Amino acid sequence: MATVNLGVIMNGVTGRMGTNQHLIRSIMAIRSQGGVALPNGDVIMPDPLLVGRQESKLRALAESNGLERWSTDLDACLADPYYQIYFDSQTTDRRVEGVRKAIAAGKHIYCEKPTAGNLAESLELARLARERGVKNGVVQDKLFLPGLIKLIRLIDSGYFGRILSVRMEFGYWVFEGDMIPCQRPSWNYRKEDGGGIIVDMFAHWRYVLDNLFGKVRSVSCLGATHIPERYDERNEKYSCTAEDAAYATFEIEGGIVAQANSSWAVRVNRDELVNIQVDGTNGSAAAGLRNCKTQHKVNTPKPVWNPDIPSPYNFLDQWEPVPDNQVFDNGFKMQWELFLKHVACGTPFPWDLLEGAKGTQLAELGLQSWKERRWIDIPDLTL
Amino acid sequence: MATVNLGVIMNGVTGRMGTNQHLIRSIMAIRSQGGVALPNGDVIMPDPLLVGRQESKLRALAESNGLERWSTDLDACLADPYYQIYFDSQTTDRRVEGVRKAIAAGKHIYCEKPTAGNLAESLELARLARERGVKNGVVQDKLFLPGLIKLIRLIDSGYFGRILSVRMEFGYWVFEGDMIPCQRPSWNYRKEDGGGIIVDMFAHWRYVLDNLFGKVRSVSCLGATHIPERYDERNEKYSCTAEDAAYATFEIEGGIVAQANSSWAVRVNRDELVNIQVDGTNGSAAAGLRNCKTQHKVNTPKPVWNPDIPSPYNFLDQWEPVPDNQVFDNGFKMQWELFLKHVACGTPFPWDLLEGAKGTQLAELGLQSWKERRWIDIPDLTL
Amino acid sequence: MATVNLGVIMNGVTGRMGTNQHLIRSIMAIRSQGGVALPNGDVIMPDPLLVGRQESKLRALAESNGLERWSTDLDACLADPYYQIYFDSQTTDRRVEGVRKAIAAGKHIYCEKPTAGNLAESLELARLARERGVKNGVVQDKLFLPGLIKLIRLIDSGYFGRILSVRMEFGYWVFEGDMIPCQRPSWNYRKEDGGGIIVDMFAHWRYVLDNLFGKVRSVSCLGATHIPERYDERNEKYSCTAEDAAYATFEIEGGIVAQANSSWAVRVNRDELVNIQVDGTNGSAAAGLRNCKTQHKVNTPKPVWNPDIPSPYNFLDQWEPVPDNQVFDNGFKMQWELFLKHVACGTPFPWDLLEGAKGTQLAELGLQSWKERRWIDIPDLTL
Amino acid sequence: MATVNLGVIMNGVTGRMGTNQHLIRSIMAIRSQGGVALPNGDVIMPDPLLVGRQESKLRALAESNGLERWSTDLDACLADPYYQIYFDSQTTDRRVEGVRKAIAAGKHIYCEKPTAGNLAESLELARLARERGVKNGVVQDKLFLPGLIKLIRLIDSGYFGRILSVRMEFGYWVFEGDMIPCQRPSWNYRKEDGGGIIVDMFAHWRYVLDNLFGKVRSVSCLGATHIPERYDERNEKYSCTAEDAAYATFEIEGGIVAQANSSWAVRVNRDELVNIQVDGTNGSAAAGLRNCKTQHKVNTPKPVWNPDIPSPYNFLDQWEPVPDNQVFDNGFKMQWELFLKHVACGTPFPWDLLEGAKGTQLAELGLQSWKERRWIDIPDLTL
Repeated sequence: MATVNLGVIMNGVTGRMGTNQHLIRSIMAIRSQGGVALPNGDVIMPDPLLVGRQESKLRALAESNGLERWSTDLDACLADPYYQIYFDSQTTDRRVEGVRKAIAAGKHIYCEKPTAGNLAESLELARLARERGVKNGVVQDKLFLPGLIKLIRLIDSGYFGRILSVRMEFGYWVFEGDMIPCQRPSWNYRKEDGGGIIVDMFAHWRYVLDNLFGKVRSVSCLGATHIPERYDERNEKYSCTAEDAAYATFEIEGGIVAQANSSWAVRVNRDELVNIQVDGTNGSAAAGLRNCKTQHKVNTPKPVWNPDIPSPYNFLDQWEPVPDNQVFDNGFKMQWELFLKHVACGTPFPWDLLEGAKGTQLAELGLQSWKERRWIDIPDLTL
Repeated sequence: MATVNLGVIMNGVTGRMGTNQHLIRSIMAIRSQGGVALPNGDVIMPDPLLVGRQESKLRALAESNGLERWSTDLDACLADPYYQIYFDSQTTDRRVEGVRKAIAAGKHIYCEKPTAGNLAESLELARLARERGVKNGVVQDKLFLPGLIKLIRLIDSGYFGRILSVRMEFGYWVFEGDMIPCQRPSWNYRKEDGGGIIVDMFAHWRYVLDNLFGKVRSVSCLGATHIPERYDERNEKYSCTAEDAAYATFEIEGGIVAQANSSWAVRVNRDELVNIQVDGTNGSAAAGLRNCKTQHKVNTPKPVWNPDIPSPYNFLDQWEPVPDNQVFDNGFKMQWELFLKHVACGTPFPWDLLEGAKGTQLAELGLQSWKERRWIDIPDLTL
Repeated sequence: MATVNLGVIMNGVTGRMGTNQHLIRSIMAIRSQGGVALPNGDVIMPDPLLVGRQESKLRALAESNGLERWSTDLDACLADPYYQIYFDSQTTDRRVEGVRKAIAAGKHIYCEKPTAGNLAESLELARLARERGVKNGVVQDKLFLPGLIKLIRLIDSGYFGRILSVRMEFGYWVFEGDMIPCQRPSWNYRKEDGGGIIVDMFAHWRYVLDNLFGKVRSVSCLGATHIPERYDERNEKYSCTAEDAAYATFEIEGGIVAQANSSWAVRVNRDELVNIQVDGTNGSAAAGLRNCKTQHKVNTPKPVWNPDIPSPYNFLDQWEPVPDNQVFDNGFKMQWELFLKHVACGTPFPWDLLEGAKGTQLAELGLQSWKERRWIDIPDLTL
Repeated sequence: MATVNLGVIMNGVTGRMGTNQHLIRSIMAIRSQGGVALPNGDVIMPDPLLVGRQESKLRALAESNGLERWSTDLDACLADPYYQIYFDSQTTDRRVEGVRKAIAAGKHIYCEKPTAGNLAESLELARLARERGVKNGVVQDKLFLPGLIKLIRLIDSGYFGRILSVRMEFGYWVFEGDMIPCQRPSWNYRKEDGGGIIVDMFAHWRYVLDNLFGKVRSVSCLGATHIPERYDERNEKYSCTAEDAAYATFEIEGGIVAQANSSWAVRVNRDELVNIQVDGTNGSAAAGLRNCKTQHKVNTPKPVWNPDIPSPYNFLDQWEPVPDNQVFDNGFKMQWELFLKHVACGTPFPWDLLEGAKGTQLAELGLQSWKERRWIDIPDLTL
């Protein structure tokens, strides 16, 4: 039993998600548990090097995690052959350059989504990685949420019979920032800064739909900016130039219809922040981040529209929770472990840069559909 | 105080809705309560004459309601000046002819929706009625449901601030008919017989949207036939040629977006068979047939997406019911009383044949949108 | 459309079940509803003639039901060709003679179970009926209970996957009769009067198992007389010579195990007086008289035995009711209607005297198993 | 007040139960609380020495519990007179040899059940211990579960009057291991590895029945392998050669009937994983691991079978919980304390190796009953 160190350059993990999910709950947690065990008995130990632009933030982050290495010189780091993996969770507009350099340096790539601000660059990164022969992956964390793992269980077990339709509802009320501070960064609401809910959410919808239900074939999308003015981090009013809601319908292969609402201007009248309802001939389910519940056809009521009496049914009581039946590890960590094994011994890792590009593609075509007021077919992506 | 008899020819009330809602729970109930009181102290007493095609059914229905008059000869009835009102709840394909004759005979018209199988005929009826100078109305019963009355109360009180969006979800599982008999007639699933959920539901969506939120400006609609084969009333298998689900988005004047799913192939994961969620800057509400609940902005939680812990919120508990605070009469009866007063003394009755034609228009344009895979603008209707 | 009168001799309907279930809720209810409609449009109208031994009781029963005909002379009644059907709900010891005579008179036979006190006579009746060519049927009312109809729905829909086992628990506390009067007749507890829970319940278990799960192949049974002394209808103490509980296991074809407890000395710690739990590879269900609930494999929890903490599960909350989705008519009436149609136009009626004999067979072999303290195989019954 | 150290050789406590229940929650917990107080004011302090076969595991376990002594040399440990007690929780196939050696070395014996893989060896151990004059005990932890302690309270108080019958239902769904990993080790389902639910559960049923209700006199048992193939710890399919369910009936002295189902292929439709219902002339109770509830005869309803109306009773609401009224310590620890006192000052300890042998006896006779398809009487065990 040998322990194999795998050097990982972590670029841009000083943000909330980078720090909490990728550094602390993934890499540091993997180190604490003694690494990732391989089938041959060896153990992979990820060895992080923090890279960023702000020295003070980097130093503080390294210290609070007991790490000795950090740097503001990305090029020097990439030149060190000890580091085989480059991870990028910078803001989207900086990602392409960082990933491009890392590929050129022969590093394996793992990065946040969206991989780029547009499809062309997303594809370019995938192409460069293939040409250089480096392994690559993109964060698709929602697939590892307990609620979705349970939903995948149902799909794999054939629970639904034939799947007919999917209803996806994501959103909550993002405060305008006047009375109560806004709980999201202001750039989310400025198109010129890469904001907008379509770019943010369609990448998620894409891999959820593709992985769970089948290829997305076409999209119809209407965006809206329901709240035209908000207050930013300094409590100053600004104009919202990006959409804060998107009403979309997707056609999935096999005749499945997926209807998806994404909104930062809606109040939550459902079990969780995201709700995915799946209806099939044999049963239905509704999944969120954590939970999933089902209604089998044998438990399906037979209501009749009758305005004269109160409904004899309590419909929400007619769903049965899917129990955990397993311990759910942090989803970001689970995907990190799969990527580390992929790098170390070639086990499969399906969520590569080309898959990541598909998310960007769906966002672009969604925006096009909105602009042209029509359905847009989604071409297959190839390199 | 005088009692004014108003003769009403009721054509086609031997069906379930005609008998239960229009005859028993409306006209007979109005008679039982002593008529409709007018502002001047007079009382209108509707005096029904049942007309239809099956003598035995008519006789039985008349007898069981203590009525002496019934007839299979519509023309003779229309010739009798005692009867000022003609009501039609025949099947849609027979309605145009009946209403046309009644207008020609100078009767005031009240009828079920859809007023005709296509927009052209719907408009023709409205035009004929205007030219002949008869009063006219169309049943729009959903507006008189307790849940919608409460929602209208909220709108009228300015509760929502600026209304941003409307989510409408209608549907339930209509059984295929093999194991458990189908709870809807088989013609609903055959296009050649006037079936399809778009024709059925868009007439309702139209008057709900127009009356509550503003004029519907455009529609994008995707239909689907999720269940391709069903079993009919004789337990024989047949092919479903009409859509059983429709996924639509509407643009309403004032920038409101309304997203509406209608489906007979969905399991009910909501409070009631129909759910209308309205989000506004100051608060939100969700209404069904019977109930309505709200969440004001001061009660709105501020959730943050955090996959590491179970949600600290029970979102469904954060809504507050709107109390009845009044006794809700049968909705069909309420609309009948308004129409009788409209006829008797000219009080307003906004839901006329032109309004009814708008429902047919929306259904036609929804079907066109589905076929052409694009948004369709909705022209104003004029006579 | 013709109305066909079918004369029915009803022998022994002055008892509780005969009066309530067979006369009032079946025959009289069928008359009230206008008879039984046949596929060809004709209607069968059963026309009862009450027969019994106590003139006063018969007269009272006839009068209270608006019937004119009753008789204490069975032979004379059987001689009247107007009466095509003979129904027998006398006590078991009188049934054989009555049915034998009726067969000889060429009547179609419908009777209560058990058809005779022993297998030989039960088979004899079946054989006589076949030789005489008369139609025949035996009451198997439990199959028409709403709970069992729902369970049959689940089986027919393939809900269970492969069925593994059946747990049947029947019973309740029958009071000893000292403080609180006994709620069952005292002969139930005297072997010499045909009492005992095995004779009573195994006939039910037989047709439930055979009809729902497959042929019963073998039986192991232990009887017990838990309460050795009771107080009879006159409040006099008597010795209980018949068993008041039976603990049985059955092997069903296909490897299904059915474990069944029947007891009049148990307190009810379950949903209903009878509970039938079925476990299959894909799901489980538990049915009673009225209700049925399910747990699908995707909703099945994964408990681990841990004595250190309270169970994190509320197991009883993890079952989901099967909704009615239909109106359930009285089960006795449903079976009567099927038998009347069987007589009138030859539609199938699988529960004939041979099927009835199987119940008696199982009771006999159960008693033999108890006596010989071993498993007994169940031979096929033929005439 | 003196503190008396009692050296305890703990052999095979690196397994889940050995580590958690015997080492951590019993011996270490007793040390933490300051030992076991004796009536004379002295205190017994158990002083463990970990013995096993894997050095690395032993060292880690010792270190994590702050223990300095561990060894892989059992013989050397047994030679040290400081250690008066030998505890064995190895796998069953190794237990006999370990216990035999320890008896020969004059150690007092405490060990897990089953004490041996067959009755002959179980008896041999009991005989050897008696001949050598060492004190001895066998773990019978279920007797110390809070639910059973409450049930014993009821029995001891005479609550039941005469006890008539016992219904025992144990089991839950053990997943097949394809979709969801199996929650039990695969050897449980392989006869050649000592698997099978009869060997596992009948040892428990024996001491529960013997201790609570009276001597078990005879057994009838049917085993079944409901799930013929499962997936093992490496996710590989294997054939199940041992039974996963047992349907048994026991006769207890005094005419009590105990019916017991044990299954790893059943879904839990009861309050807890194990449910023991006891019915007596004066009242009934149902106990699980944690809870116990009762129904006294004065609270017993008097239901009548009536298929025409829904049951007017909610039977499950008619039971009343038995309150804790005490703090329940860990059951394993409670039995350890009793054994330590037994060794130190001769207080009674009824659960010796002969009692342990009775569990093995019942399992063997249960398997014989299944094979021979008949009741088997249970001879008294003597040394």
